[in-house]
Amino acid sequence: MGGVGEDMRVLESREWYIASYAPQGVPNSDHLKIRTAKLSLALNSIPERHVVLETLFLSVDPYLRSRMTGREDGLYLPHIFTVIIAFGVGRVIKSNDPNYSEGDIVISPVTPLAEYCVVSSQSITRKIDPHSGISTPEYISLLGVPGFAAWVGIEVIADPKPGSNVFISAAAGGVGMYAGQLAKLEGCRVIGSTGSDEKVRLIKEEFGYDDAFNYHKEKDFDAALSKYFPNGIDVYLDNVGGRMLEAVLNHVNKHAKIPLCGMISEYNKAWTEREGVRNLLNLVGKEVHMQGFMLGSYMDRFGDFAKEMEGHLKHGKIGSKIKIFHGIDKFLESLGSLFTSCNIGKVVIQVNE
Amino acid sequence: MGGVGEDMRVLESREWYIASYAPQGVPNSDHLKIRTAKLSLALNSIPERHVVLETLFLSVDPYLRSRMTGREDGLYLPHIFTVIIAFGVGRVIKSNDPNYSEGDIVISPVTPLAEYCVVSSQSITRKIDPHSGISTPEYISLLGVPGFAAWVGIEVIADPKPGSNVFISAAAGGVGMYAGQLAKLEGCRVIGSTGSDEKVRLIKEEFGYDDAFNYHKEKDFDAALSKYFPNGIDVYLDNVGGRMLEAVLNHVNKHAKIPLCGMISEYNKAWTEREGVRNLLNLVGKEVHMQGFMLGSYMDRFGDFAKEMEGHLKHGKIGSKIKIFHGIDKFLESLGSLFTSCNIGKVVIQVNE
Repeated sequence: MGGVGEDMRVLESREWYIASYAPQGVPNSDHLKIRTAKLSLALNSIPERHVVLETLFLSVDPYLRSRMTGREDGLYLPHIFTVIIAFGVGRVIKSNDPNYSEGDIVISPVTPLAEYCVVSSQSITRKIDPHSGISTPEYISLLGVPGFAAWVGIEVIADPKPGSNVFISAAAGGVGMYAGQLAKLEGCRVIGSTGSDEKVRLIKEEFGYDDAFNYHKEKDFDAALSKYFPNGIDVYLDNVGGRMLEAVLNHVNKHAKIPLCGMISEYNKAWTEREGVRNLLNLVGKEVHMQGFMLGSYMDRFGDFAKEMEGHLKHGKIGSKIKIFHGIDKFLESLGSLFTSCNIGKVVIQVNE
Repeated sequence: MGGVGEDMRVLESREWYIASYAPQGVPNSDHLKIRTAKLSLALNSIPERHVVLETLFLSVDPYLRSRMTGREDGLYLPHIFTVIIAFGVGRVIKSNDPNYSEGDIVISPVTPLAEYCVVSSQSITRKIDPHSGISTPEYISLLGVPGFAAWVGIEVIADPKPGSNVFISAAAGGVGMYAGQLAKLEGCRVIGSTGSDEKVRLIKEEFGYDDAFNYHKEKDFDAALSKYFPNGIDVYLDNVGGRMLEAVLNHVNKHAKIPLCGMISEYNKAWTEREGVRNLLNLVGKEVHMQGFMLGSYMDRFGDFAKEMEGHLKHGKIGSKIKIFHGIDKFLESLGSLFTSCNIGKVVIQVNE
């Protein structure tokens, strides 16, 4: 203990915590605050089978917001004053586990939103091969939360046939961009809705959507869907909820499938103030399957997903658009960007080089 | 043709038809009218593989109302002036099919709402054994639409485990009474909501529900469900939609299943005037499966259903409450009774003795 040559450094690490819950609205600096913690590198301060990570990238996803409401909605509810947890990539700078060495780059879905952190090596899902040819942020995008959510929604739950009419909302967001590409690889006709003309262009030109529309320019979603889906909708991957979901239910085909990935239009509102969906009776006559899903229930499929997605990536069949915020202090801004129509693609934070 | 001894009678048969669609409200005598048709018993007027039936019993179910809206909702939409079609039992009085003889009692899910009718023998799903010990109306109740709907909802879609917390709305209606008994046979804890104290008593005392409440007396469904489901809801067989469905979504457990059988609170309203369900986001966090179903998609399971239900019936494990209206002229009144809180059990019309 504390022998010659031992690294006795104490690192200062900035970290984000929940200062108060935000039941409504976009969380701001009253709710989410940054503080500096001290983290000792002395070996006897690191529990067995734990490692100290220098955080490289953190994944900023809409589900993080739903954990800040103070309500127990089936979504994980953290205690106040605890550090926020996200999907992340880090470099091992100290290890108390023989399976990990300094310099290893690892993925943990429960990485603290901090510059440095201690994680259980049981939480590590993967050690990255530096010669894989895959850029590091892809491990938390295409191969991370949004890629896996898109894959579960399209491949596991919707399971569309060639020629199926697939509609995807928030189509230029992290999940939407991959979901559309996966549905195209299945031979479907894919239409997306998104929040700007720039994003409409992006998803048609870069992600191969057959068509797309800017929902800000469509006052009548029902009319828009009549135009884009003359033969009805077989699959709707819902990322937004509310009025768009309601409009979709007027256009569903028999036995349509609606995987519910999240509802970005609804997270910031108290439930009694949300737009009610009035036409659920259509689910009966059209025998629609509507199914909410959380990735934690599909971890047994993560290996299949990663193998398939890496294959698509290596063969150039799937692409990403990643928006990188630089520095841990950008977390609040990056989270807020998810709730504007300005965000394009997957949002990540690069914490350290 | 027309040889010695041939039955050349022409029967007069009263029949119900749709005079005009009823987009909203309970259909009345402006929408549904009765007329007298003439039906020849001359053999050359009966197509091959068809039979003439004297209608005995007709099944009056909420889905009939949804076919009168004039909207194509995935539900079958009949043309105006055509005779209404229902699940029925009839006695063969003339046959042009070697497989059926005069006097046979048969079931057809597409029996015209008429005193006498001609049906294709392909539409006949069953010839009744007069020595089965099963009373004739049970073939359109326990072994008919409501029994099959309850069985598909509980056994096929929800598939509850022993100890599951099951909630059933419209619990003293045709579907509800069987669904609760089936869930009890699976070892579940079953609670029902219904529209009168008399029906609360009925379902607890005769159908074995663990508990039940009169929704007219519960101003706050949310509070009622907190009281009756301290451990949350695992299965909700929804027969009503609207505010009750919304309240349920605040009490669902992880991976809850919600078979949507119909929405009696919604049929009589234009969709834009229906109660919107505002908390569908709960489907995501709780990973709920919500699934509309129509019996036509499960006909391959009808044999399994009939065998199982007859077994339960013969062993006294399941009971029925059947409300019989007498005479074809009572159709409009019997249909209207489905939309009041006064109706108890399965509604049928006895057309002929």
